[in-house]
Amino acid sequence: MGASVGFIGVGTMGGPMARNLLRAGHRVRVFDLDSRLVAGLEKDGAEVAANAAAAASEADCVITMLPRGEHVESALFGDQGAATAMREGTLYIDMSTILPSHCERFAHRLRAAGVCVVDAPVGRSSQHAIDGKLLIMVGGEAGDVDRARAFLEPLGDTIVHCGPTGAGQKMKLVNNYMSIALNALTAEALVMAESAGLDPEQARSVMLGTVAGQGHMGTTYPAKVLKGDLTPGFMVDLAHKDMGLALAMAGELDAPAWLGAVAHQTYGLARRHGRGAEDWTAVYAALRETAMGDER
Amino acid sequence: MGASVGFIGVGTMGGPMARNLLRAGHRVRVFDLDSRLVAGLEKDGAEVAANAAAAASEADCVITMLPRGEHVESALFGDQGAATAMREGTLYIDMSTILPSHCERFAHRLRAAGVCVVDAPVGRSSQHAIDGKLLIMVGGEAGDVDRARAFLEPLGDTIVHCGPTGAGQKMKLVNNYMSIALNALTAEALVMAESAGLDPEQARSVMLGTVAGQGHMGTTYPAKVLKGDLTPGFMVDLAHKDMGLALAMAGELDAPAWLGAVAHQTYGLARRHGRGAEDWTAVYAALRETAMGDER
Amino acid sequence: MGASVGFIGVGTMGGPMARNLLRAGHRVRVFDLDSRLVAGLEKDGAEVAANAAAAASEADCVITMLPRGEHVESALFGDQGAATAMREGTLYIDMSTILPSHCERFAHRLRAAGVCVVDAPVGRSSQHAIDGKLLIMVGGEAGDVDRARAFLEPLGDTIVHCGPTGAGQKMKLVNNYMSIALNALTAEALVMAESAGLDPEQARSVMLGTVAGQGHMGTTYPAKVLKGDLTPGFMVDLAHKDMGLALAMAGELDAPAWLGAVAHQTYGLARRHGRGAEDWTAVYAALRETAMGDER
Amino acid sequence: MGASVGFIGVGTMGGPMARNLLRAGHRVRVFDLDSRLVAGLEKDGAEVAANAAAAASEADCVITMLPRGEHVESALFGDQGAATAMREGTLYIDMSTILPSHCERFAHRLRAAGVCVVDAPVGRSSQHAIDGKLLIMVGGEAGDVDRARAFLEPLGDTIVHCGPTGAGQKMKLVNNYMSIALNALTAEALVMAESAGLDPEQARSVMLGTVAGQGHMGTTYPAKVLKGDLTPGFMVDLAHKDMGLALAMAGELDAPAWLGAVAHQTYGLARRHGRGAEDWTAVYAALRETAMGDER
Repeated sequence: MGASVGFIGVGTMGGPMARNLLRAGHRVRVFDLDSRLVAGLEKDGAEVAANAAAAASEADCVITMLPRGEHVESALFGDQGAATAMREGTLYIDMSTILPSHCERFAHRLRAAGVCVVDAPVGRSSQHAIDGKLLIMVGGEAGDVDRARAFLEPLGDTIVHCGPTGAGQKMKLVNNYMSIALNALTAEALVMAESAGLDPEQARSVMLGTVAGQGHMGTTYPAKVLKGDLTPGFMVDLAHKDMGLALAMAGELDAPAWLGAVAHQTYGLARRHGRGAEDWTAVYAALRETAMGDER
Repeated sequence: MGASVGFIGVGTMGGPMARNLLRAGHRVRVFDLDSRLVAGLEKDGAEVAANAAAAASEADCVITMLPRGEHVESALFGDQGAATAMREGTLYIDMSTILPSHCERFAHRLRAAGVCVVDAPVGRSSQHAIDGKLLIMVGGEAGDVDRARAFLEPLGDTIVHCGPTGAGQKMKLVNNYMSIALNALTAEALVMAESAGLDPEQARSVMLGTVAGQGHMGTTYPAKVLKGDLTPGFMVDLAHKDMGLALAMAGELDAPAWLGAVAHQTYGLARRHGRGAEDWTAVYAALRETAMGDER
Repeated sequence: MGASVGFIGVGTMGGPMARNLLRAGHRVRVFDLDSRLVAGLEKDGAEVAANAAAAASEADCVITMLPRGEHVESALFGDQGAATAMREGTLYIDMSTILPSHCERFAHRLRAAGVCVVDAPVGRSSQHAIDGKLLIMVGGEAGDVDRARAFLEPLGDTIVHCGPTGAGQKMKLVNNYMSIALNALTAEALVMAESAGLDPEQARSVMLGTVAGQGHMGTTYPAKVLKGDLTPGFMVDLAHKDMGLALAMAGELDAPAWLGAVAHQTYGLARRHGRGAEDWTAVYAALRETAMGDER
Repeated sequence: MGASVGFIGVGTMGGPMARNLLRAGHRVRVFDLDSRLVAGLEKDGAEVAANAAAAASEADCVITMLPRGEHVESALFGDQGAATAMREGTLYIDMSTILPSHCERFAHRLRAAGVCVVDAPVGRSSQHAIDGKLLIMVGGEAGDVDRARAFLEPLGDTIVHCGPTGAGQKMKLVNNYMSIALNALTAEALVMAESAGLDPEQARSVMLGTVAGQGHMGTTYPAKVLKGDLTPGFMVDLAHKDMGLALAMAGELDAPAWLGAVAHQTYGLARRHGRGAEDWTAVYAALRETAMGDER
């Protein structure tokens, strides 16, 4: 039979997640500052707690799913916070997306009281939360992560252990960094197509046939830089020149091209690193050098 | 039997393209400023011309495949340039990647002499040029583009007619804009993962399971903004907040995050447009408004 | 005779500031987590407190000068924090540079206990702190700010009341925003000069004779946009074109030009707002419209 | 008595410049594609030429003042271009702002015909053109530049010889780079002030009292990095932190902060170069290293 779970934060994401834990047979006690959110869950079998401490009391596992680090901090350490109710050996899983450094700070305080801490932020959408098909990126000690699986498996279909405490948050933020910036870039490209008098639907279709739409991670990167081959399929110098042309066109059209303007500079950096005649994926090698101080 | 083709510029891309025209049964006369490049083609059956005008002389179709707009200008209109040898009705196809405005200027001068002008820059890599599997983006009048197919089909497996003269260049530049900037963004995300102590290979694998690696063009865009649905799967405000977290982490790690820093500002713009509570793909709608002056 | 001051945080800036309060005749009780910092002040007549609460105890005025918001939070509300020792009517001045929203949050908690709160972050350098010639940007209610002057006047020669609580922080951050970004831009311009083979010293001297070196705030802005005159002295369209040339040169030289690349986009935005034929200071009007939603 | 000058391009800037040459006693023959522009000059004593070649014919000195490189190219080398009329020893001064690489290309062709070539783009405004108080940045061989002074001195009060042919253009573009980007940055700072509820006029006044408004070139740079002193007056790490706060505030306010977002990354770069504890002007040293490959 199921375990006893305290679930704090049952909004758009947390609500369906708590429901999936109920379905999996766990006893779930929920708390949210917005009392309207808990009503529906009560009908589905959840017990409603008056505050975070009450939700955490006697629980085998406490889960938080809150909007920001300060909410997590206050749910844990504020008045009637969950930390006061967690015992030695309680498993605490934070599924919110917060700064890794905050995550590490909270974990440090809880561990002093013997609590087992795992961070497990989620990816994908609210529909995936409903379907129990989230991507869950997990940080923590191996034993704690193993214990956490019983509570994570009803929620997601991909559970990735990324490293020690905070590593789940780090993976989440890297993934978000990429997808959120890519959205802004995609918007620029499609607006540029339309500004140029092209059919944006045709432009999208053309790009879906190239790395523009398919991305580099599954195409050029494994074929070139990630296996150490920098012989040019498409040269950094040519990419630099072609981006210059695209920016000149955007300038004539007054199409917004903020990300491309900055990316052009990144190719300039790769050229300064002596990589102009290498494959364009050498941009990764150049950037890595500036960040990690590696020798070629 | 084949037609007579003058081919100017037989480097990494132009060389294999001329060879594929020979294979398709055309008679090809080649010219390149670098005389070493024409030697191999002569063995394969090409005739070698002493200058651009000689290559173009008596040709049914003249093709240029040159690095920059000034090379095209000089191959056409310089001393012993091809323009002097093109007759009324000659088909001229520029397959170089150059500024659309230059393309339009050259076409204007050639049309005054009755030349039929098509721009047809290519996508994909030098390997695709060898295999005759290039992506060819074509601009020009329908009749001219139809005539051009006989010469383009041996070179590529995807031929897209994008609009009037210059439209091929425009599509090419939009596609390049996206793929070249995306490379720089990809490099940042993977370097950030490694700076955070994550395994970059695991990070790549996680991202290949999300829009971070798969891109928005075939996923979120058709599901949301492109069909007019801006109810939030993932809210602009949350994306703005999460990018703020990612940038804060990057700041702590000293990981380069140039494109993300700028993308964060794009979300700020979407929020100023009153789109904070809409789906994150509303960034496209907001950017489109600033460029096209559309009302919502 | 002087008042009794509790001074928390006596590093590079706080140390000389506390010393200037002593010189002005105040009784100063100091606290710092780094006990080495307080030793010198004790010789100069300060009393040393064992913790923040002890420093604040019985004080007419409590001042914090700490590196970050979390340090201020912990000095106020942590174990043995100053908040426990402040009475109804105590004047609290935070001279740290922190987020305005944090400042407002702390003020809210302290006011509930009757404490009078003023934020007063400082500008200029550590040498100015020693000389008592800081720039002090003050936020708070008029009566509280007036009380604060007795403690601020020994520290600075320019005291600017910027608005309600948090306004001092806001002014400080705006000032920092400008000076910190301007440093990065200045570096780019001088590096570009040297990359172009120019004498950077001559370049600096030329720029000191133009708005490049003198800035716009005291020159073009009051002469044009701020008095509502947008007839072009130098047109947005020309500035857009000239920045394009400068970026093209930077591209040929591989000189870093990150800020200029982004600034070029800002001019594109002004052109999209129909301001291409206006004076270049219309960039301010265009940006203001995007932020404030103003009609022209 | 005066010399004979052919002046091509008499718009907003060129018109008053030609008039000042007439006032200085030169005989001036003018040409402009827009015939309305020459009418006023004819009344002031200029002779009107039918084309560029006619303007240049028999002239001791030919001056061009045109909007773009392609206009200069066509005025020189197009049909009835000035180049056909220039003799061995004719002095040619291009005062247009164009790409240095174009300038060098044109000079190369003209020198083959014995023409003496000087580039002399101008700074400041149209009012300065009227007053004969332009800043003139000159490139060319010393002897040619000396000959040019007779024609430049009536036009400007500051004539700076910057180096060989093209150096005037390079200095102009560096100066423009700085002033044009600085305008965009200034706009962001003042809009941020207003978004924060501050009085923008007070903000401007505060900044005019700091390097934010005064610039770094005459203040922090000569005091620190340019004399090799990187002991911190204000540390790179603190500037990085403070820019993070300003960007967080801008994010909360939805104030546009594109340049600052990018500048924040430049400080990250300086930190990666091990310069976090140095003076903030070390940003220049770090950027210089990436561009020039210098050792510290």
